[in-house]
Amino acid sequence: MTDIVPIMRFGRDLLVTLQGDLDDTTVERVEREITEEVARTHAAGVLMDISRLDIVDSFVAGVLGRLGGMIRLLGADTALVGMQPAVAITLVELGAPMGHLHTALNAEQGLALLRRLRDDAGR
Amino acid sequence: MTDIVPIMRFGRDLLVTLQGDLDDTTVERVEREITEEVARTHAAGVLMDISRLDIVDSFVAGVLGRLGGMIRLLGADTALVGMQPAVAITLVELGAPMGHLHTALNAEQGLALLRRLRDDAGR
Repeated sequence: MTDIVPIMRFGRDLLVTLQGDLDDTTVERVEREITEEVARTHAAGVLMDISRLDIVDSFVAGVLGRLGGMIRLLGADTALVGMQPAVAITLVELGAPMGHLHTALNAEQGLALLRRLRDDAGR
Repeated sequence: MTDIVPIMRFGRDLLVTLQGDLDDTTVERVEREITEEVARTHAAGVLMDISRLDIVDSFVAGVLGRLGGMIRLLGADTALVGMQPAVAITLVELGAPMGHLHTALNAEQGLALLRRLRDDAGR
């Protein structure tokens, strides 16, 4: 069975690549697979690469925001990496609430960010 | 378009999660996507997580071996991580040639291995 979201464990963090279309039917599976893996592995952080998302509109922004909220409830932090400049512009223009999401330029900096967040929180 | 192989760039390395069935029709795309990304990004190493491969038999072992050979020709090293114990047993029993492939227990150790390999080679 191919998981809809490939997830790689990296120390205490999970590396997730989101790609393709995030539509109504896949979002539910994406949310379930990621949250179940966070719970199963007791992950401390989730690094989400969104550089291959075809479209980031208000719907996808909402999905990302919700995912960040779910992961936070499970006790882990979320770092988004690989955001295209056009996406950053869109998200700010949409006024999308990205409260639970941290962002970094690339995967290396994202992992460093996740580690810093839990060092600061003493986790 | 969903890529068949999600690839995340991590510094000078690429992180690849292989999953689902590797059959005749997908193998060609898998080989193309990985080799093109190695060339495009000038990657020095490829970390391949095979923990989610459903079946590793002599066919898949051959695919992995060939991929390692192609990546080597492009000037990069390959580290396999997440091999299930049953897979290790199968591969040894099959006598599968894994010449161009290095292996490590998990993604962190795999990345460390890739870095060590290029330090040793002065790349």
